[in-house]
Amino acid sequence: MGTVKSDIEIAREATMLPIRDVAAQLGIQEEYLESYGRYKAKLSQKLWDQIKDRPDGKLVLVTAINPTPAGEGKTTTTVGLGQAMGKLGKKAIIALREPSLGPCMGVKGGAAGGGYSQIVPMEEINLHFTGDIHAVSTAHNLLSAMIDNHLQQGNALGLDPRRITWKRVVDLNDRALRNIVVGLGGTSQGVPREDGFMISVASEIMAILCLADDLLDLKERLGRIIVGYTYEGKPVTAKDLKAHGAMAALLKDAISPNLVQTLENTPCIIHGGPFANIAHGCNSLRATRYALKLADLVITEAGFGADLGAEKFLDIKCRIGNLKPSAIVLVATVRALKYNGGVPKADLGRENLQALADGFVNLQAHIENLQKYHVPVVVTLNSFLSDTEAEISYVEERCRAMGCAFALSKVWEKGGEGGIELAQELLRTLEEKPSNYRPLYPDSMPLAQKIETIAKEIYGAAAVNFEAGVGRQLKKLEELGFGSFPVCIAKTQYSLSDDPKRLGRPSGFTISIRQVTVSAGAGFVVALAGDIMTMPGLPKVPAAETIDVDGDGNITGLF
Amino acid sequence: MGTVKSDIEIAREATMLPIRDVAAQLGIQEEYLESYGRYKAKLSQKLWDQIKDRPDGKLVLVTAINPTPAGEGKTTTTVGLGQAMGKLGKKAIIALREPSLGPCMGVKGGAAGGGYSQIVPMEEINLHFTGDIHAVSTAHNLLSAMIDNHLQQGNALGLDPRRITWKRVVDLNDRALRNIVVGLGGTSQGVPREDGFMISVASEIMAILCLADDLLDLKERLGRIIVGYTYEGKPVTAKDLKAHGAMAALLKDAISPNLVQTLENTPCIIHGGPFANIAHGCNSLRATRYALKLADLVITEAGFGADLGAEKFLDIKCRIGNLKPSAIVLVATVRALKYNGGVPKADLGRENLQALADGFVNLQAHIENLQKYHVPVVVTLNSFLSDTEAEISYVEERCRAMGCAFALSKVWEKGGEGGIELAQELLRTLEEKPSNYRPLYPDSMPLAQKIETIAKEIYGAAAVNFEAGVGRQLKKLEELGFGSFPVCIAKTQYSLSDDPKRLGRPSGFTISIRQVTVSAGAGFVVALAGDIMTMPGLPKVPAAETIDVDGDGNITGLF
Repeated sequence: MGTVKSDIEIAREATMLPIRDVAAQLGIQEEYLESYGRYKAKLSQKLWDQIKDRPDGKLVLVTAINPTPAGEGKTTTTVGLGQAMGKLGKKAIIALREPSLGPCMGVKGGAAGGGYSQIVPMEEINLHFTGDIHAVSTAHNLLSAMIDNHLQQGNALGLDPRRITWKRVVDLNDRALRNIVVGLGGTSQGVPREDGFMISVASEIMAILCLADDLLDLKERLGRIIVGYTYEGKPVTAKDLKAHGAMAALLKDAISPNLVQTLENTPCIIHGGPFANIAHGCNSLRATRYALKLADLVITEAGFGADLGAEKFLDIKCRIGNLKPSAIVLVATVRALKYNGGVPKADLGRENLQALADGFVNLQAHIENLQKYHVPVVVTLNSFLSDTEAEISYVEERCRAMGCAFALSKVWEKGGEGGIELAQELLRTLEEKPSNYRPLYPDSMPLAQKIETIAKEIYGAAAVNFEAGVGRQLKKLEELGFGSFPVCIAKTQYSLSDDPKRLGRPSGFTISIRQVTVSAGAGFVVALAGDIMTMPGLPKVPAAETIDVDGDGNITGLF
Repeated sequence: MGTVKSDIEIAREATMLPIRDVAAQLGIQEEYLESYGRYKAKLSQKLWDQIKDRPDGKLVLVTAINPTPAGEGKTTTTVGLGQAMGKLGKKAIIALREPSLGPCMGVKGGAAGGGYSQIVPMEEINLHFTGDIHAVSTAHNLLSAMIDNHLQQGNALGLDPRRITWKRVVDLNDRALRNIVVGLGGTSQGVPREDGFMISVASEIMAILCLADDLLDLKERLGRIIVGYTYEGKPVTAKDLKAHGAMAALLKDAISPNLVQTLENTPCIIHGGPFANIAHGCNSLRATRYALKLADLVITEAGFGADLGAEKFLDIKCRIGNLKPSAIVLVATVRALKYNGGVPKADLGRENLQALADGFVNLQAHIENLQKYHVPVVVTLNSFLSDTEAEISYVEERCRAMGCAFALSKVWEKGGEGGIELAQELLRTLEEKPSNYRPLYPDSMPLAQKIETIAKEIYGAAAVNFEAGVGRQLKKLEELGFGSFPVCIAKTQYSLSDDPKRLGRPSGFTISIRQVTVSAGAGFVVALAGDIMTMPGLPKVPAAETIDVDGDGNITGLF
């Protein structure tokens, strides 16, 4: 019996193909690649011009129940499922988000799948990758610098320093930058004002990068960003500051999707990674579109649980991008369901059918929610050694009774081989069950009603409480012409409610909306339900303390 | 008669070779390249292992008189000279620094030569290039975040929040970040303290990247960085915070030199770009070493004028890296010399032999200074249409009388062709005049005396005034074991003195040293003479306002 290998050890043993060979599998010639080393490449705009009139492949979303400390393995399942499709001879592409450096250095190490279902080169994807997030940070902070320079140089636009909504960003967890005062030191050192940093992936620019059709649309969207308001309450945009051209120039390469591969050489496009609370939490629309033209099957995922990630994928990304998903794979684990049923983390390894039944309600809620979009659902249990046959059968029966397909998945341990059952179940669903996707609400619905619809239909809230001032804010956003935007609710990911401690399927609760703002460039209205952290902190012992590199560039300590 | 083309227009018309073909000219096989798109590549550590036992080529430094608003064209001359060597059939490599985004978005647009002596792809080199500076910024700010997290998590090391010397960085001009207060907002949001941002190229990590032998040496140097002092006055290092492993991991690719080409396909290695005041202002030692093994002739440059850049190249980089420069090319212009002779900028186009003679003293001082290092000097005038024959002859005669070779250079207008006279003069010098390089002072000299030696021998100061507390600081640095380090004086680049308004060759002045600090990882002591800006501000109309990109990714507005 050997010891269990770490993700990075498994990743390092992979036999990667040169990226041009991975591209060749998809029929992409080398001239359409901008390679970044041997194993990463950007797909050029010229490639899009070549492929844009092809028919689309089928789009499958992988989502999950609410995250628990037990772990669900959504990304691992996405990767394993893609690998399984490869084993079955299907032309499939996996489409994922780019990991942020913050969590990587903070708590969780890498984010590119796990076990034998990983994307490689894992270290490079986790560290700087092809520089997309750095480009987002730079474009963001250039706009910040131009705002403060505008104040310093006479403030011709009359921007109210107290009402600047555009913060700064860094792609790290750095709590000391949450609340700061800038511009201290006298008249030649700027105008003093309160400010703060967010983590880069919380930047509206990341959301824009992920929703833009092309470079020109990106530039237009950047120009529409609202950075704050004048003393008269008029919005001031990046275009007013003449910043959008340079910002777009900084993003000219970042807009191109990145091609990498799995441990089993399945093609994977990793591109963009907005937060799934204050933003829509999906990889880029461009990446998805390229993938749909290049493969018969595109397997993608969205951030956090289905109440946040899938809802935003379906109501924001699919709406804006005119995408039609063909099926949804919903990931759960027996352990996580028992955790939802009240079992402490230490006891999750023991069979407990009552707790499983109690916790199943969380999965049930997500199934019911996803069915409201009229897309067929396949449930998969990401298998653990401690799962018993009785537990697995219980879940399977309940899911099938709700009209869902069901399959066990062993992709962490066995890679693509462990996902064949799921892949076959999914293929059967794609063949037999038509998707009649439609978003939850129409564009024309008033903003407050959109919020109520999501809160009641998806979260299961009994009511929505708009805190003082929110009604006025909503009215103003509608007056400014943003009434037709979809709504992006920022809420805890740990519960269907806005209280992270309420597991299972809470009911009778009220969702409180504290504030609404607009991401005018991205094209959605953000409603804040609770305290949403846009700048994480480091834990007592940051992951960075254990990350190391040897003289040959081999990295250790990334999980 | 056509209109004069902008640098970016000329650059875009260039016929670039695929970077593997440029590498092939140098005998480098594709397996030793990590390409970044078609026209940029990193040279791998494995290449170094292949070439490290070869004999070195000859190393030539290009430097200049003190910068004036008239412009000297040091980088343009460096590029043009390299191109001229190519035309003469010599195996030459140009070795330059990486441009920072701050000035690019701020005042001056791009920084990769000019006219027909440019490095390409110009836009990409100026924007994100291969991500090296982003990696420096990230490693720097990770350490910053770990410092504040250490304070927040109980401050086991007893770090005095008032004596933290490690700031944060961003690669932009952003004056509002010079002086800030971080950690506001209550007990869960960090420990409030004064802080500030520098531009990334002012980071000690950039200096370290440029002086490290290899990845292990880099990690050791990162570990030695002093981030502040305890309440007892004991230094606290990055190693104490266990940050250096992750920082080195973030820099594992950044340490590899970048290969690009000139408009005439001459190979150019661009790598590293530390400030030339608080740091040593040269490209990386690794880049220079690779270049010396790959070519017969390496043409490099150092920041600002010879009093700052060349002095630091000769006393810091050559000392630490054990380099032996064979010759120095000193760049001046007739216009800049007349400006030094008191002529206002608007009148520089008119012949004025008296002003030229008055201003020649600046060039004379730099020649005398460089001769103290026992390296032969070639003076070149970067030619302008308004220069008269009498003016050129005057400079030539004075230079030759001082034992220097002399040549006109027309590389801006004519590319390599315009540098052939200079190239031939340089080749003759390399053949006929031996270099007996030695640094200005020995390691063993006490720090105060090192400062005095540079101030008197190079700047021409009559005396050095150590302000209150500096004597104590020097004593402490010597007690901590840094007495053998070379000294890096941070002084204005516009004058040989510490007063930017004193042009020509000031004398009788006193240099005031306000503060000394140590860059313990880089390996030098920094002495601040005057107010040195480590975070520039944006001007009233930032260059960013005119930068734009079209739908095909073509950038305009970079100069």
